[in-house]
Amino acid sequence: MTRRGSVPATPGARAVLNGDRRALARLITRVEGRDPSVVPTLRSLYPRTGRARVVGLTGPLGVGKSSLINALLQHLRAEGHQVAVVAVDPTSPFSGGSVLGDRIRLDRRADDTGVFIRSMASRGHSGGVAAATREVVRLLDAAGFDVVLVETVGSGQVDVEIRDIASTSIVVLVPHLGDEVQTLKAGLFEIADVFCVNKGDLPGAESASRDLLELAGLGPGREGWRPKVVTTSARDGTGIAPLWAAVNAHETYLDSDGRRAAGERRRLGHELVELVRERVARDLEERLDSDVEVGTLLDQLATRAIDPYVAAERLFATLRADPTGPKE
Amino acid sequence: MTRRGSVPATPGARAVLNGDRRALARLITRVEGRDPSVVPTLRSLYPRTGRARVVGLTGPLGVGKSSLINALLQHLRAEGHQVAVVAVDPTSPFSGGSVLGDRIRLDRRADDTGVFIRSMASRGHSGGVAAATREVVRLLDAAGFDVVLVETVGSGQVDVEIRDIASTSIVVLVPHLGDEVQTLKAGLFEIADVFCVNKGDLPGAESASRDLLELAGLGPGREGWRPKVVTTSARDGTGIAPLWAAVNAHETYLDSDGRRAAGERRRLGHELVELVRERVARDLEERLDSDVEVGTLLDQLATRAIDPYVAAERLFATLRADPTGPKE
Repeated sequence: MTRRGSVPATPGARAVLNGDRRALARLITRVEGRDPSVVPTLRSLYPRTGRARVVGLTGPLGVGKSSLINALLQHLRAEGHQVAVVAVDPTSPFSGGSVLGDRIRLDRRADDTGVFIRSMASRGHSGGVAAATREVVRLLDAAGFDVVLVETVGSGQVDVEIRDIASTSIVVLVPHLGDEVQTLKAGLFEIADVFCVNKGDLPGAESASRDLLELAGLGPGREGWRPKVVTTSARDGTGIAPLWAAVNAHETYLDSDGRRAAGERRRLGHELVELVRERVARDLEERLDSDVEVGTLLDQLATRAIDPYVAAERLFATLRADPTGPKE
Repeated sequence: MTRRGSVPATPGARAVLNGDRRALARLITRVEGRDPSVVPTLRSLYPRTGRARVVGLTGPLGVGKSSLINALLQHLRAEGHQVAVVAVDPTSPFSGGSVLGDRIRLDRRADDTGVFIRSMASRGHSGGVAAATREVVRLLDAAGFDVVLVETVGSGQVDVEIRDIASTSIVVLVPHLGDEVQTLKAGLFEIADVFCVNKGDLPGAESASRDLLELAGLGPGREGWRPKVVTTSARDGTGIAPLWAAVNAHETYLDSDGRRAAGERRRLGHELVELVRERVARDLEERLDSDVEVGTLLDQLATRAIDPYVAAERLFATLRADPTGPKE
């Protein structure tokens, strides 16, 4: 049985714990590339995780998420937090690049080691993106950042999966989107613990915020929490302190009645399922071209002698645990 | 051992084979909802599949894919084909709805049973969308449609996964996108067997098509195939016959040197891996809340006594094949 701390620290893990930011960046690159050789480092760091507050931040393009994050960073640094930002960045084969790119340009001093910013491209399977993001968040957590902001551009599935990594999620809108909030419906309320109406100096901000509050009051809310609505103006810093106070209020709510522990357990459960799925897929993909048993199944499928469901069941029956433990 | 045709035909399967379009539509709805009770019907229809030509059609919003499909439908109907169209439709929690919606409005007579159109929402996991689309294509194949067009809006991962369902893929662009084709790069060439430069009456169409041809000639092409480039104008039907001829040329290419069989084998292999992954995830998710063994693992994870990778390996070791065969 593996006990706390009994997985030997790798050189990478030691570097992260010693505050080596370049080593941290290199490890993140390997996680992003789903490089399996990084697993021993992740394993040995796992006991040092679970301390960071992980806050998700999502919303459509053009609502000013980057300026908002800049303003939040200043606020959090002034409060003495060590803050990391992970921008999860959808790529498209049609743009050949990323939507967010290097958008986040910060006013911070280059020598401020209390801030760490990283864009992650979301090439590949959305499930893989969520897994990679979770591991990057853990690296940052182990590196001593006590607040990790995870930004996604509001584009569907990835947001929902990232939602499962953060303990509090902020959905950012702007007034004119707020007006159309009736059409946004359930999807947003599944994600949001806090609504942020940014560009609050634009006309319509007040009514947008009122509409959201009213809608937030209609349902039971996620786990009994009624989403807070905060109006901000990232340009002049209006509303940033109340926005963070709303995040803290939700975090305090989680601390009552065992909600945080239950939430973490649920998240760990999903993670386990995902890891076993990945493990199974990796094993099977390795066998597709070489394994005689698999070859026979494919032959029978191709001639329609058997159907894919019975073939899958037979293949499932050939899965065998590796007695040597996790592959490293 | 299950032999060809030995899975008893369900009432749904019989209805599909008898050309009952309403029964077909209802089955598709169940597939879309990942309703497991539809599996016996899919199994009993599997021996009746593999005859349809499955053609993917993708490209960014605004390139006129719907008009192009309308024009293709007319052409294919005139050639005597039975044609089904599946529009895979990404949804966003921010729009609350679908991108494509009911866009496809056809000029066809309502009583033309040789055409079947269906939009599928892509809520949920992108892997799930690909699996559902594959099953819907098989239903349409079994129902006797000899051409199935699968349309996606060019939005990344889903396109790549759908690529794996079609034997020929058309990427639709417009001239001004063609001009920027240098930035589109590898992604598109991974997908395209045929490039269609639509709105060919716009300025720049000729140079866009020339650029694409040049780029297509640079690489080795997918499996030795050099993508064809066709200029169309869906409005007046220009280029539609050459577009279909390009698809046929690629299909003929597949028929040589065992490429089609190799491709189908590869696709079936991926499908098998996906089915086993789904099967594993379903089993484990059922056990998350109830199973004592899983509960202990989650407790140990929450206290950081073990790490997720060793927990996943232990969980993997508890997977057991169901001796009763595929669940129905």
